[in-house]
Formats: sequence, structure tokens, C-alpha cells
Amino acid sequence: MSATRTEHDAFGPVEIPAERYWGAQTQRALGVFDVGTERFAPCLLRAFGLQKIAAARANVRCGVLDPALADAIVAAAQELRDGLLDDHFPLTVWQTGSGTQTNMNANEVIANRANLRLGQPLGANSPVHPNDHVNASQSSNDSFPTVMHIAAALEVRDRLVPSLAGLQRALDDRAQAFAADIKVARTHLMDAVPMTMGQAFDAFGWQVRNALARLDDAMPRLRVLAQGGTAAGTGLNAPAGFDVLFCEEASALAGMPFTPNSCKFEGMGGHDALLELSGVLNVIAASLMKMANDIRWMGSGPRCGIGELVVPDDGLTSSIMPGKRNPTIAEVLVQACMQVMGNHVTVTMAGASGNFELNVAKPLLIHNLLQSIRVLSDGTRVFADKLVAGLAVDGERLAANVGNALLAVTALNPILGYDKVARITRTAMERRITPREAAVDLGLLSGEDYDRWVDPARMACSSRK
Amino acid sequence: MSATRTEHDAFGPVEIPAERYWGAQTQRALGVFDVGTERFAPCLLRAFGLQKIAAARANVRCGVLDPALADAIVAAAQELRDGLLDDHFPLTVWQTGSGTQTNMNANEVIANRANLRLGQPLGANSPVHPNDHVNASQSSNDSFPTVMHIAAALEVRDRLVPSLAGLQRALDDRAQAFAADIKVARTHLMDAVPMTMGQAFDAFGWQVRNALARLDDAMPRLRVLAQGGTAAGTGLNAPAGFDVLFCEEASALAGMPFTPNSCKFEGMGGHDALLELSGVLNVIAASLMKMANDIRWMGSGPRCGIGELVVPDDGLTSSIMPGKRNPTIAEVLVQACMQVMGNHVTVTMAGASGNFELNVAKPLLIHNLLQSIRVLSDGTRVFADKLVAGLAVDGERLAANVGNALLAVTALNPILGYDKVARITRTAMERRITPREAAVDLGLLSGEDYDRWVDPARMACSSRK
Amino acid sequence: MSATRTEHDAFGPVEIPAERYWGAQTQRALGVFDVGTERFAPCLLRAFGLQKIAAARANVRCGVLDPALADAIVAAAQELRDGLLDDHFPLTVWQTGSGTQTNMNANEVIANRANLRLGQPLGANSPVHPNDHVNASQSSNDSFPTVMHIAAALEVRDRLVPSLAGLQRALDDRAQAFAADIKVARTHLMDAVPMTMGQAFDAFGWQVRNALARLDDAMPRLRVLAQGGTAAGTGLNAPAGFDVLFCEEASALAGMPFTPNSCKFEGMGGHDALLELSGVLNVIAASLMKMANDIRWMGSGPRCGIGELVVPDDGLTSSIMPGKRNPTIAEVLVQACMQVMGNHVTVTMAGASGNFELNVAKPLLIHNLLQSIRVLSDGTRVFADKLVAGLAVDGERLAANVGNALLAVTALNPILGYDKVARITRTAMERRITPREAAVDLGLLSGEDYDRWVDPARMACSSRK
Amino acid sequence: MSATRTEHDAFGPVEIPAERYWGAQTQRALGVFDVGTERFAPCLLRAFGLQKIAAARANVRCGVLDPALADAIVAAAQELRDGLLDDHFPLTVWQTGSGTQTNMNANEVIANRANLRLGQPLGANSPVHPNDHVNASQSSNDSFPTVMHIAAALEVRDRLVPSLAGLQRALDDRAQAFAADIKVARTHLMDAVPMTMGQAFDAFGWQVRNALARLDDAMPRLRVLAQGGTAAGTGLNAPAGFDVLFCEEASALAGMPFTPNSCKFEGMGGHDALLELSGVLNVIAASLMKMANDIRWMGSGPRCGIGELVVPDDGLTSSIMPGKRNPTIAEVLVQACMQVMGNHVTVTMAGASGNFELNVAKPLLIHNLLQSIRVLSDGTRVFADKLVAGLAVDGERLAANVGNALLAVTALNPILGYDKVARITRTAMERRITPREAAVDLGLLSGEDYDRWVDPARMACSSRK
Repeated sequence: MSATRTEHDAFGPVEIPAERYWGAQTQRALGVFDVGTERFAPCLLRAFGLQKIAAARANVRCGVLDPALADAIVAAAQELRDGLLDDHFPLTVWQTGSGTQTNMNANEVIANRANLRLGQPLGANSPVHPNDHVNASQSSNDSFPTVMHIAAALEVRDRLVPSLAGLQRALDDRAQAFAADIKVARTHLMDAVPMTMGQAFDAFGWQVRNALARLDDAMPRLRVLAQGGTAAGTGLNAPAGFDVLFCEEASALAGMPFTPNSCKFEGMGGHDALLELSGVLNVIAASLMKMANDIRWMGSGPRCGIGELVVPDDGLTSSIMPGKRNPTIAEVLVQACMQVMGNHVTVTMAGASGNFELNVAKPLLIHNLLQSIRVLSDGTRVFADKLVAGLAVDGERLAANVGNALLAVTALNPILGYDKVARITRTAMERRITPREAAVDLGLLSGEDYDRWVDPARMACSSRK
Repeated sequence: MSATRTEHDAFGPVEIPAERYWGAQTQRALGVFDVGTERFAPCLLRAFGLQKIAAARANVRCGVLDPALADAIVAAAQELRDGLLDDHFPLTVWQTGSGTQTNMNANEVIANRANLRLGQPLGANSPVHPNDHVNASQSSNDSFPTVMHIAAALEVRDRLVPSLAGLQRALDDRAQAFAADIKVARTHLMDAVPMTMGQAFDAFGWQVRNALARLDDAMPRLRVLAQGGTAAGTGLNAPAGFDVLFCEEASALAGMPFTPNSCKFEGMGGHDALLELSGVLNVIAASLMKMANDIRWMGSGPRCGIGELVVPDDGLTSSIMPGKRNPTIAEVLVQACMQVMGNHVTVTMAGASGNFELNVAKPLLIHNLLQSIRVLSDGTRVFADKLVAGLAVDGERLAANVGNALLAVTALNPILGYDKVARITRTAMERRITPREAAVDLGLLSGEDYDRWVDPARMACSSRK
Repeated sequence: MSATRTEHDAFGPVEIPAERYWGAQTQRALGVFDVGTERFAPCLLRAFGLQKIAAARANVRCGVLDPALADAIVAAAQELRDGLLDDHFPLTVWQTGSGTQTNMNANEVIANRANLRLGQPLGANSPVHPNDHVNASQSSNDSFPTVMHIAAALEVRDRLVPSLAGLQRALDDRAQAFAADIKVARTHLMDAVPMTMGQAFDAFGWQVRNALARLDDAMPRLRVLAQGGTAAGTGLNAPAGFDVLFCEEASALAGMPFTPNSCKFEGMGGHDALLELSGVLNVIAASLMKMANDIRWMGSGPRCGIGELVVPDDGLTSSIMPGKRNPTIAEVLVQACMQVMGNHVTVTMAGASGNFELNVAKPLLIHNLLQSIRVLSDGTRVFADKLVAGLAVDGERLAANVGNALLAVTALNPILGYDKVARITRTAMERRITPREAAVDLGLLSGEDYDRWVDPARMACSSRK
Repeated sequence: MSATRTEHDAFGPVEIPAERYWGAQTQRALGVFDVGTERFAPCLLRAFGLQKIAAARANVRCGVLDPALADAIVAAAQELRDGLLDDHFPLTVWQTGSGTQTNMNANEVIANRANLRLGQPLGANSPVHPNDHVNASQSSNDSFPTVMHIAAALEVRDRLVPSLAGLQRALDDRAQAFAADIKVARTHLMDAVPMTMGQAFDAFGWQVRNALARLDDAMPRLRVLAQGGTAAGTGLNAPAGFDVLFCEEASALAGMPFTPNSCKFEGMGGHDALLELSGVLNVIAASLMKMANDIRWMGSGPRCGIGELVVPDDGLTSSIMPGKRNPTIAEVLVQACMQVMGNHVTVTMAGASGNFELNVAKPLLIHNLLQSIRVLSDGTRVFADKLVAGLAVDGERLAANVGNALLAVTALNPILGYDKVARITRTAMERRITPREAAVDLGLLSGEDYDRWVDPARMACSSRK
């Protein structure tokens, strides 16, 4: 259609759209991999920019790259890092399992962009060569997993942790606001003893606190990088100490302490650290799904459900039932959590499927992991800001329910013993009377004694003792 | 400890407990595989009995087995089929991925038992030899997958289908019993338009009807057997037509039409038919989980939940809250469904992991599949008999809820149009009044017209038009 | 930024980009759901176009929609079906669990487009109203699941089945081409008896044949539509017989026989038919993963692996190891299969999570299912066309391996008995000699007899008896 | 059949086998839950013994339990801890989702056993009452999750960690033994640059080192106990400080520092810490699966595969191919890993499915988790002791392969540049000559220079720089 230029590689000439920065290997890959529509998340391209800058600087420090070429490479890679070159990455995630084509794409785009800066036309491959210079001291085998780690670590720090911290604040705020709202606890979905709504939100808050702690624990292993392993982990063609210098440069750029993997083979043949992170996301998804469901159920009704919480109105309604209000945002979070759980299975299979010196499910693995981080982060943020922050209790409903809570009689166990209390409950249920009436009718307790012992407000605070 | 006898195989002598029928290879396997405690379900051993009878008879018909030896083999295998020899199968499922050790165990036990009948001591290996006669025209490569298919098909027919059919009857019965009980429908957990409780149970019943249809569709591929493939699928050392004769004999024994796999390699290198069955179990588990949860939720309370259904009392209660009643049986079924879903992932991985001519995750695959069938069947049976059959509605609660159902106004859409009806709903919610009051207050409709158009009983029957 | 127009709904005024066809509810949803980047596959929007055409026609036949309005609606919906209105669908899949926002989006776009045709400005909501006319006799509750089924069924027919059929042809072609190429079979990854390469491809072909049969079996339940259930499955506000007429119109449009669900509640509260389809995709993924891996392994090397197959060169290579050739396309297919397997877990969770009259994980479920169909179809097509079709055998390697196949001695079992043959194998392995030499040395057989009995070509054809 | 005694609970009389220690609630549960055959792992019953001892001691210290009764309870619970009372736990894991029936079973057995010691007959319920004394200050709601944590933590410490440590030693030993054995690395299954076999085992060792570190990180959250929460997390009926004293006692008994959960509700409504542990097991399973598969593949052959490793003979063989040796133990480990991965999905679903104050998938969750620990531990131990420890290299094969390794030319990149080296590889492949010959023929390098630069031994050590 449009004008093309001709580039060459070891396999011969290739026609490339004239205005694009990619080169022969990317163009060939486009012809081979006509599969799906999924692109890598932009953060992966950003991380590639960072990685190529750090590699160029480490190469200069090792004396294997001309500083002038390095400057041009760094400037081009910085554009990639700034999101200015995304249009030059046409491939989907469905490519070879080492991510080689996207690494080559980065090498080619940066080389072309650098050569342009140095006054050469696209496709010159000189003075900056995509393999010999941009990829110097590197292989896809070590660069791609390095980028996977960097992208995941930055997304956790910059996207997921802030979202979770925001949710924790919103939950803590609601816990405080609802501290005096007594409600009936529910076990097996059945009415149990009294507690406060604040305690329910406190429990949610603890789950998020633990989520943040789990992420903290996973980070050190995630910040270990395979760079320096080059071909198959051997380190062939990388100068001595390259891995250490690379991590210094990458750390400075990212504001995050990266360290070289002591065993490069470990970081290429498997992806245990990324699978570990996916496992943490899986725990967080389980926590959030429970929380979102609890809030949906406590807000169910408004008149024929549990109805203890009032979910803020989001202005959306049914296409047939006019004015119907639904907990749409909670449903988004629940769906995001299910996506994370399914992605975790994909990541597990991908992580377990390496052979010998290379795991070849890298694009799949990182695509799923970054999607998980993204939808979990976004879902959490919207849930915190637009739903949790606006939650209110329906005080009338809470009070009515607490008055109906049969199992408040559990407080009588130490006085009457388990078996006699069981008779009270049974009688109250069968005769549809209050447990107080049942206790008095059975001659087990006076009404005054009952009221003294069975005090929902005090019971709700038992755990504060 | 106890007395032993000495048997020999190609690797030398082995000491075996004197009173056990197994032989050298089983004894060696016991020493090698000291892993876990899980045994094959008894139905797998029964299916091995059936398979060895059918093979012996087919061998006689092909002229490769002496009828006298065959008689002894058949008699011994019948004991295995009758569950009399289980104590002679000491191995766990954690063995080589072809199931060879359990096939050898069967060969050895049957050979020893047959030789005993023929007046020889244990360990004689003569006149009946475990490999040359019991395993004649067979390999573990074809016998074990054949047994996997037979065991799964019989368990589906004899255990799962009857349980599901029983559940369908119980659901249909409740659908009829609840046909006139009007309730509020719930979408997004929120009150919607009126319907009947009978319709809810009718929907459950349809899910089970479809479950049975799905099983029916999977059966033909499950009844295709790999027997006759022998080593790696080549059919080496099996006489011509052995596969057809085997299937005739096996069909007669099982009362179920088995057919030979047209491509023996397909039935050994992969286990697609078993994975397909697992996928059907997975759908059924999803249906049942939804159903059990719906019933748990409609029975939640008794006073502070939805409380529209009354779950029968099973006599079990809380260890601290005396007299508390919980939907324990529904929880069992939900847990069984989650087991099936997780097992399905294991079965998927096992099914996808074959290499070349042999899938070597057979023991794992069939163990998980048979467990899934078992817990789904049992969970369904108990759920149908002890929970669904005893369900009742709380008529008062249903009526109160229907009276509160805001969105019954949806029936006014064709009269007033969507936008005006939305004003009614909104007004009723904000002012906490009935939608009838809101409609009249807004001057959109007279009370009489409202009652004429908004008739829950008629609305519940819309779908019967 | 750009100019806007003001639309109104029950919640008040909303500013909408002037040139966009969507309306108030879509615009509000954009403000609420700021989550992720995933859009519905275009085929879902196409199916919405088809569904709205069929509904309008059925409404006319029922006498509830003015034919002039219907004509405008059909014309607008046809544009959607033709892919001309995609830019007017700005929402991601992360929306309320009923898919209401995308249904409203379709209603709004079609209403605006129809009104434009009828000479009204955008936002007029008249004469065509998005709810009262475009959505007439419908709810998101029934329209969205109907669209889910239609989209999935068409994608299977138009994308997956042709890809699989193409793969089957390519495999059959290779099976024939390799029919005389004798190779060593491998069980437990270890050398076994001889077979042909054609037999290996024949087995692959059978897996694909069965895959197509499984899809066939799942189709009838997939072509059952919930349309007509309207709010919560009750059928409220849909005229009698609407469901049947809708299916007639939809069938004519799609060229595929759709039928109404006998129990509308079943088709909204759960999505068993879609989960069933996902289970079939999961089986197909397992088959294809096994096949792709087998081919990768048989092509491993070129010099230090198995090396029996030569994978066609795709012109792609390593970023550090110049000229290295890798089985990139097989890796794409393996990764696609893992995506399908993980998506299947998401679909399972989504399918099992319905409550009462509505499953609210619909957008998640259909997004994952359509992605699975797409990547499986594309991965299969590329694998068939660019890899399988170009496969060749390395005849030298095959011959060398067959000559080395120790276990060819299995053919001697009927002559010598299992125990004596075991001695041959053992001797050959220990002394690193050929089994022929071992047999002769052990005095069990003359060399001539050995050659007569152990004939790889004949053994490979055992299964043809 | 056998003689029975009569016990009573709030629901009336129950007949119990005369010689069994369990009571009315256990007997009723037996009648209700006729599902499956799976029993809790013995370690769970041991942990219940420990929990009941610690609770009794804490109750005495709080002044709510008579020391004489406590002594009898402790003595009985110690018998449970010692494995002497297993025959009195007849229930399967398929019970109510709180584990109440097994907690009641423990209460009843300990009460009966304690009363026997105190001279009372079975069923006396006095002086020791199962609820009022054995379960004093407790509920199933807090006791069962406490026991889940204790059992899992002890199994990790006593079973999994020693197995992994043993594997690490075996791998390190092999890494040292194979330090000088040069082999060809493989990426994408294709021949790459040279490395040593020791490096491959070093990478395996690092995976295990990280596995141990991951377990370490998960332990602190696993050692946090819900005990003290009693009914629904409120702490009702537990004396102040009970949770702290309980943890002191439990820590002393277990030799492991347990701490009270700061938010009891968190420890009952969800099971994030257990799901986190399952996620770690999932990573470990992925590592081990990769390792076992690598070893299987490197040992494939013996003559027609890769054949670089010699797997020790375990004396097991094929039922039809006499003398065939298979990597059976590696297959056991691979299967165990797949079980862990599927169980992880079950645990995830179980963990995410809590509602309000109670997760009711506890028996399912802990059954799957303990099975995962067990099969992973046992599989690892057998793999280390009986396979890894006995591995040898086939030196001839290694040498032949290294000589054939085309991509050793990668070492020439810094000399010739990527593009020229690609020509060498391509020429060597097409003409089936050595790369040295190709380099010389192409006039790019003299043979002497080639040998100087392309030195496999030096290349293998690149990463040691």
C-alpha cells in the first residue's frame, strides 16, 4: 500500500513500511505470527526502554561500546521509555517463547532511531547495529526476562501498592465510622452472635494489610535480574562485571534496588519469582473477592435482601427495570479477581513448562501477569474510591436484625451450660418466639437476668478484652 | 516381620510376604515408591478384573491361550472383579505414569491365584505366567487406558447418572410443590420482578437435565478402547482381530457397548476422551454449586437473612452456639464441586502432558477423575435425599417480600414508557414509600389502574405465554 | 476537549462528545468504570447487530413495533453488524456483570443512528427510543446472553472449525507422506518398538477429528437462546411467541438454526452451555499442546537432539546466536493452549458464580471464551499452514535410530517368552552391544532366526492387521 | 451389628457402637454425610490433640477450668496427639464447611476418654463435658482454623523442608560431580552454546534454595492463630488473654512460635495465609516439574534420545517390552506436582468463597493443602534419594554433542560481528558441515583462529567471570 524501504538480514531482503522504525526481523515476524490481537502492556515497552539505557551505560563502563554510539542509543531508548515509540511495536504477544521478536523489535527501533539522530537513513544498520551495539553484551535470553522482572516490579510499586493502600485507608475509615453500629454476625450464612459493622470492615482492612506485606516479601526475589547471562545463561560475550554494572544503572533509573541473579541459568530456564508474584496476586484476589461479595450481600435488597449496607448510587441502571440500582462496581472487582485466578493457572503452566536452559512461555507469562496487576489495581482503586468510600449503614435494618438474633443466647453458656441453652434456642425457633421469652417460659432464667447477661453491645466488644 | 517367600524376575530374587499374591515387580515397586497414601478407587480394581477376563476369553478365541489356563485366569480375575483380592494391591497411585506397576500387580495376583487353583504354590509363575499368559496380547500401554475408560464409564452409569436422576426428580417435585408460591426475583442480588419459587426449581431441574444430556454425549467416545495396541500402539504380539473380540467380551461383561479405537496410538499418547468427561463433570459442578448456593442463600437467616426457604433440620449444630442450624449438606456439595474443579485442572495438565506414544500421567489422571465422579455422585445423592426433598417455603416471608418488590413497576413500561416508570422507582426509593404510592403521587396513574397492571401473580406467569 | 452535546436520563443531564452516537448511560458508565484496557472482540459487536435486527423484525411480526421505526432500527443495526460503528463502543469488558452497559450502548447507538436517518439530531431519543424501541421486548438479562451464544457459535463455525479442518488436512497429508518412514516409538521418553512416522501423524489427525466431533456435540446446546426471558427470565413485557419469532429471524440472518430456551431462567442464571464449550476448547488445547510438543521434540537438535523431523525455516533467529533456528510457531501454539486452559478456569469460576436469576460474570466469561476461540483458531491455522505443511523427515536419523532400537526384541516374546527376552535386553544394554549380538551370544537364537522375527518394517505395521 | 450404647444431645437419643469413644454429634454426622472416602491426614488429628492440650492449660491459667478436669483432658488429648485414638474418628472430610463435626468428634472422644480415666462410663458427659469443658473458651469457628494452621506449619517444618533440603544437597553434590562435564546448552529445545552439566544442576539447586526461602517467608503469617475468636470472631465466652496464653502453650508443645491473630475475624472469614502457602507450594511444584522433566529428557534414549544422563536402574520394567528401563521416579514427581497445581485451584476457590464471618470450605481447603504438602515432600524425597543421588553422565554422548554444537560460533560475534557469524551457521547447516569448515570455506577465519576463539571449555565458564 504505502511506500516501503528495503532492509536485509541473513535471510535476504525485506520490504518495510517506509515510515516505521522497525527492521527486518520484526517485519518477518509480522508475516509469520498472524495470531490474535493482544499487545504487550505499555509498561513492558517502557521497561525495555529502561533496560536498553542501562545496558548501553554498562557497556560504556565496560569499554565495549563507543560512548558516542551509546549516547545515541540512550537517547533513542529514552524515547521508548517515554512512550513515544509505541507505534513502532506492531507485534502481538503471540510470538516465539523467548520474546526474541520483541527484543529484536526494540533493538531495531532503537538502532534506526539512533542512526537517524546520527544522520543516517532508516535501515542503515550503521553506525549503530541492532545486534552488535543495541544488543551488545545481551541476548533475548537474558534481556527479555530482565524486562519482565523490571516491568512487574514497577507495576506493583506504582500501580498495585497505591491502589491497595487507598483501599486500606477507605476500609479503615469505614471501620471507624461504623464502630458503634451493632449487627448480627453470620456463620454458614445463618444468624450468629452480635458484632459491629466496624469489626467487619476492620477484618477487610487486615486482609489488605497482609496483602501489602505479602507483596513486600515477594519483591526482593523479583528484583533479582538475569541480565548478564546472555546466551542460555553462560554469560558468553558479556564482559566481566557487566551484570553488576547493569543493575547499578537500572536501579538508578528505576529508583529501586535491582541485584544480579547469582545463577543466571535459574533466571532463564524458569520464572519462579514471577510465578511467586502471581501467587501473591492470587491471594489478594481471593481476599478482594470475599470483601466485594460480602459488601454486595450486605447491600442486597433494598427491601427483600439483607439490606444492612447502602451502596452509593452510580447513576447506572437496568435496560428494562427502570430505576433499578445494582452493585456494579463490586461486580467489576469480582470479575477482575476471577481473571487473576485464571491467569494464575496460565502463569503456573507457563512457569512450569521450561526445558533445559530456556523457558519458552515468556510472552504469555508476562502478558498474563501484567494484565492481572492492571485489572486488580484498577478494580481496587475504583472499588475504594467509588464504592467503599461512599458506603453507609441502614441503621433501622441493623437494629431490627440484632433484635432478632437468636444466637445471642450463646452468652448464657457459662451460666447455664451448653445443653440448657440449646433448649432455649430450639424452643424459640419452633414456637417463633424470642429467645428471651423461651428462656423465661422454660423456667431457666428470669427476664431481668436474661437482659443482664445477653447484652449485644457488650458481646460485640468481647474481642476487645 | 512375617514369613516371606522368594520370587525371581529378570533383576534377581525378591522377598515377598508369604501370604500375599503379588509378585516380584509389585514388591520392587513397593520399595521404590514410598509416596503418599492415596489408593486407586476400588472401581479401578474391579475394572481390571473385567479387563483380564475379557482378554483371556479373547485370547482363547484367537487361539493364543490354552483354554485350561484361561479358565483359571478367568476364575481368578472374577475374584478381583468381585472385590475379594483388594488386600493384594498394596501400591498407591504414585507410581510410574503408565500404571505399569498396577497392571503388573494384577497380572501377578491373578497368575498366583490361578496357579494356586491349579495346585501350584505361590511364586511358581507356572503353568500360568503373569506376562506370557495373564498379560498375553496385552501391554500396560493398552490395558491400563482400557481399564481407565471402563472404570470411568461404569462409574458414570452406575453412580453419577442415578444420583443426578434422583436430584432431577427431587427438583421437579419441589418445582411442582412451589408452583404457586410467588416470590421476588433477584438480579445482581437486588430485588427484581415477581416470579414463583417453582420457576426457580424448574431452572435447577433444567440444569440437571442438561447435565444428563452432556454425559450422554461424552459416553460414545469414552466407550472407545485402546486394547489391542499393545506396545506403544503398534499392536505388536496381539493376534489379528484381538481388539474386536476383546470389546465383544468386555461389552457382554459390562452390559455396555465398547468399541475398539480405530487409532490405538490416539488412545495411549493422549487421554482426550477422559479429559472431555472431566470437562463435563466441571460443567455439572458449576451447575450444582450455583444451585446449592442459591438454596443456602434463600434459606439464610432464619430471621436476619433472606429466609424464603426452610432447610430441613439434620440434627447437627454448632460447638459453641447451642441449637444453631446450618445448611451443612449444601456446604458438602459446594466443597465437592470445588474439588471437581481443581481436579479438572490436574486432569487437564495430565491430559496435555503426553509425549510421543505414551501419556505418562495415567495414574494421576484416573485417580482424580474417579474421585471427581465419586464425590459429585455422593454429594448429589445426599443433597437430593436429605436436603432438597425436605425443603419448604416460608410463606409469610415470601408474601412480605413480594409486597416490597419495587421493580414490579416494570409491568408499566408498555403503558408509560421507560422514562416515566424510572421516575416512579426513584421516587419510591428516595421517599421509602411503595411504588403504588409514588405512581399516584406523581400523577402518572390512578391506584386502580396501578393494581390492574401491576399484578405479581400474572407477572410471574409471563414466561408461560 | 472537543464539543459535546447534552443528553438526559432519569439521573439528569450528561455531556457527550458531539460526534459520538452513544448516549447517557454509556457516558455515565465511562465515568464509573475506569478499569483495564480490554475491549470485547469485534465479533461480539457484530452479534449485537444481528440480535437487534432479529428483535426488531420479531417485534414487527408481534405487532409491538411500528414498521417504519423498525426499518430505521434494522438499517442502523446492520451498520453495527457490518463493523461500521465500532468507534461508538468505548467501554471495556470491565463493567457490570450483566453486560447491561454494552447492551445500553448498542441501544443508544442504534437509536441515535436510526433517528439521524429519520432526520432527528443525536440525543433526540425520538422517534426511536433506545429502551422503548430498540430494546423493545428485551432486557439486558436476555439480550446479552443471547448475543454471547450467537457470537460464540459463529466464531466456532467461522473461525475454529475451518482452522481445525485445515490442520486435519495438513496432518493427513503428512501421515500419507511419512507412511513408509520407519522410526522408533517412544514410551516414557525411552526407545520402544518400531513404528512409522505416518502413524504418529495419523494419531494427531485422529485427535483433530475428535475435536471436530466434540464441537459438533456442543453446538445444539449453544444454539439455544435465552431471548424472550426479559427481566430475570419471567418474559415480562415480551409478547407471546416473541422467542420463537426471534429465533426464526436470527437463524435466517446467521444461517444457523437457533432455538428458544425452554426455560429462560436457566439461560440467565447460569451459562452451562458456554462453560461446556470452554471445556471442549480445553480438550482441544490439550490435544494441540501434545501435538506441538511432539513435533518440537522430534525436530529438536539439529545435531544434539532427536532430530527426526525438520521444521521449516521461518526466517527468524536469535538475537545473539546468529543463524539459530527455533520452532517458533509451535511455541506460539503451545502458549495459546496454555491461555485457553487458564481462561477455562476463569470461565469455570464465572460460570459457577451466578446467584438466583442472574449470573453476573457475563462480560468476563464471554471475553475469555472469545479470546480462547480466537487464539486457538489463529494458532492452529498458522501451525497448520506454516509448520505442519512444511515438515520433512531426516531419513538418515530415522534409520540410525531404528537400527539402535533395543526393544525391537519384543517381537521375540511369543517365541522365547518374556523372561528370556528380558535377558537379551539386559545383556545388550550392559555390554553396549546390539540385541542381535546379545541374543546370539546368549545362545537363544541364531542370527538368521533373529532377523526373521525382528523385522522393524513388519512390526510397524502390526496394527494394520 | 455390634453392641451399642445410647447417648443424648439436644435432638434426642442416639445409638453409638459400644466400644467407640465418639458421641452423639459424631454419630449423627455419620448418618448425614455419607459422601466419599477421603479422611483427614493423621497430622490433622495430631494437631487437634495439641490444640486441646494447649486450650485446657490456658483455661486452667485463666481460672475457667478445674485443674483436675484439665489433667484428664490433657491426658486424653495427648493420646490423640500420639496417634492412639485414630480409630475413633470415623468421619470423612466431606462435612460441614466449618469442620464442626471433626471438632465435636475430638471434643467427644476426649471427654469420653477423660471420663473413663475418671471412672465414668462412656457417654456420661460428666464430670468432663465435651462442649463445656473440652471445648471451653473455644468454638469450632476458632479451633478448626487454629488446627489447620498448626498442622500445616508442622508438616512444612517436619516433612517438606527436610525433603527439599535433602534434594538441595543431592543436587549440589551432582553439580560438583559434573562440574567438568561440558555439554551443549539447549534453548527452544535447539542446540545452543556450550556449558557444563554441573551448571545445569547448580541451577536446579538454586531453585530449591529459593523454594526454602519462600517457605520461610510464608511461615510468620502461618503461625498466626485465630484461637480466642470463639463464635464468629467475637471472642464471646473466652476469658481475657486466653488467646495469648493459648499461643504460649501451643508454642511450647510444638517447639514453634505461634502468635494470636490481632483480628480474629480475619482468621475465620478467610484463609489467606493458607492460600499463600498453597501458592508457595505451587511455585515449588513448578520448579520441581521443570527439574524432573529436564532430567527425564537428558536421560531419554538410551540410544535414540538425548541420552546425556544415565538414570539409575530401579528394577522396574515394562509388562510387554522385557528389560525396558523407564524414569519412573521422575514421573512420580511430575504427577505429584500436577496434583499440587490442581489442588491449588481448589484451595483458591475454597479460600475465596468465605461469606461474612466464616469461610465454610475449611475441611476441603486443609485436606487439599495437606495432601499437597505430603505428596510434594514424599515425591521430592524419593526423587532425591533414589534418582538424583544415583545420576551419572554418559561422557561419550556429551563429547559427541559438544563437537556437534553449531552455535558455539556465537563466540565469534565480538570478532566478526553478528551478520558474518550468521553466514557461517547458515552455511554449516545447509551443507551439513562443521561450523569450523564453513568459517574457513567462507574465508572469514583461519582454522587456527577459529580454534583459538571457539573453545567450548572456556565458553562454558563465561558466567564464572
